[in-house]
Amino acid sequence: MSSEFALIARYFTPGVSHTVVAGGDDAALLAPAAGRQLAVTTDMLVEGIHFLAGADPESLGHKTLAVNLSDLAAMGAQPRWAFLAMALPDADDEWCEAFSRGLLALARRFDVDLAGGDTTKGPRNLCVTAIGEVAFDRALRRSAARVGDDIYVSGCTGEAAFGLRTYREATGAHSVDEQHCRRRLDRPEPRVALGRALAGVAHAAIDVSDGLLADLGHVCEASNAGAELEWDRLPHSSALGTLSPEDRAAAVLGGGDDYELIVTASGRSREAMARISAESAVALTRIGSIVEGRGVRVFDRSGRVIETSRGGYDHFR
Amino acid sequence: MSSEFALIARYFTPGVSHTVVAGGDDAALLAPAAGRQLAVTTDMLVEGIHFLAGADPESLGHKTLAVNLSDLAAMGAQPRWAFLAMALPDADDEWCEAFSRGLLALARRFDVDLAGGDTTKGPRNLCVTAIGEVAFDRALRRSAARVGDDIYVSGCTGEAAFGLRTYREATGAHSVDEQHCRRRLDRPEPRVALGRALAGVAHAAIDVSDGLLADLGHVCEASNAGAELEWDRLPHSSALGTLSPEDRAAAVLGGGDDYELIVTASGRSREAMARISAESAVALTRIGSIVEGRGVRVFDRSGRVIETSRGGYDHFR
Repeated sequence: MSSEFALIARYFTPGVSHTVVAGGDDAALLAPAAGRQLAVTTDMLVEGIHFLAGADPESLGHKTLAVNLSDLAAMGAQPRWAFLAMALPDADDEWCEAFSRGLLALARRFDVDLAGGDTTKGPRNLCVTAIGEVAFDRALRRSAARVGDDIYVSGCTGEAAFGLRTYREATGAHSVDEQHCRRRLDRPEPRVALGRALAGVAHAAIDVSDGLLADLGHVCEASNAGAELEWDRLPHSSALGTLSPEDRAAAVLGGGDDYELIVTASGRSREAMARISAESAVALTRIGSIVEGRGVRVFDRSGRVIETSRGGYDHFR
Repeated sequence: MSSEFALIARYFTPGVSHTVVAGGDDAALLAPAAGRQLAVTTDMLVEGIHFLAGADPESLGHKTLAVNLSDLAAMGAQPRWAFLAMALPDADDEWCEAFSRGLLALARRFDVDLAGGDTTKGPRNLCVTAIGEVAFDRALRRSAARVGDDIYVSGCTGEAAFGLRTYREATGAHSVDEQHCRRRLDRPEPRVALGRALAGVAHAAIDVSDGLLADLGHVCEASNAGAELEWDRLPHSSALGTLSPEDRAAAVLGGGDDYELIVTASGRSREAMARISAESAVALTRIGSIVEGRGVRVFDRSGRVIETSRGGYDHFR
């Protein structure tokens, strides 16, 4: 068992590359680049709610930072700094070592400085605040979708939901597909390069944390518009092949935690969108259009509505 | 019982005055002033550790923000933005209303925008990240104390510790002094105007959260120096009059949670320090000097050492 200060010194005081003062003072000191805005996001992960008590600490360290970097990606911002506040039930060296390994590996990959934080005793709770930079008037706002915009989704949705299902049903994840989907759930890849490339080209963006329909619904609500999707255009992961058609539709349309980006852009930007997709090595699939009205509807190939948007996850419902 | 989104909309979506996008998007968007650095701090308050289960929610809202503004004050920064992540056991409208009333009243007084946050279910946990602005090279660093510096403390220390004692011993806080000390514990006043005025004049600063000796010890350690205090110079609150001399010394030297500032400054700055004290309407008492060596020693009037620094609070000890 280590002291609070020893834990921080040992596992949570990495080198920094663009921070004036990191840790060890009343506050960190940052010197943002001139002429840029800051995007700031905070996400709190609670044991028993967002992750299970026995969750692998290295994956958890990755995911705790990844969900915040995903929010910055959805604003088109370049992640720069992260702050980690955490409550831990005890000073478990082994857990802290693995957690920090997962978190700091991701931070290094995206050149994010862990610039400060707070550590206290308490029921396990992990709270990261991440700060990114974005050029003036380039941020991808939820409210910026326009009627007539194309709607895109990066990668594919539903795999994380299937991964969660394999844990709940204790399948042991024997197949390669199941292992892939667990990894998608446990080690989401924030679409940082894609988000940055989209800033100034696309109109609106959001990351898929609540589910495709729910998150696209947030964009529609903020933009006072509706959306129409074509089921046949939606990217369907082959990893979901063992699911029934109903379960697959539920995973693709309603499954959360994929951390893909939903993006809207003018029809005139199709070439630019294709180029961005190629350069960032992430598939961008055109799945529908922003329309007048409200809500999200999904059509089958004969033009029948097969699904309409439901609300997203509500922690108190 | 309200939904998560209704709670946020009702209690945690105040107007903002200097934020481009606050809430309702993947991240908040800020436009910091050019030519300034940002001070960023985060503090996590856990039920049962930092506050009791039945704590008055309005005071708790005040304190949750106040401890972060105090950190910014100790850097000489102007607080600008706050982000509130919280886990709540249930969607209790009455609690949220009172908590947000306390937090937002303090935010308004210091023109701080509550620009974003996160709400989830879980054991009660309140985590604020606060961001302030400070002119380049003006921040008050812990490491900036110099041998020969005067040491000052604002206000007085020990009252919050006495207030905590009245709760623990269930005195009912009958006297005016006891009530005053409980208020000092429950509604600490961050020394924001004082901290800003000191930036560029003083050398080092820290706020008193762990106790006078412990926090001055942090300054000494960061500055590779020692400190000598004169017991007779320390401001002694008349509110501690009913304590034994030993208990009073323990409260003044070791009591935490006062959120006063400890400041070091050159002997040539005494006039400036007196002017700053007068203008910010907060007493600044000169209590000793930074010296060669290590650690903090307190001398009585006959020159005998009566106390040496101990470690601060360690959540895992």
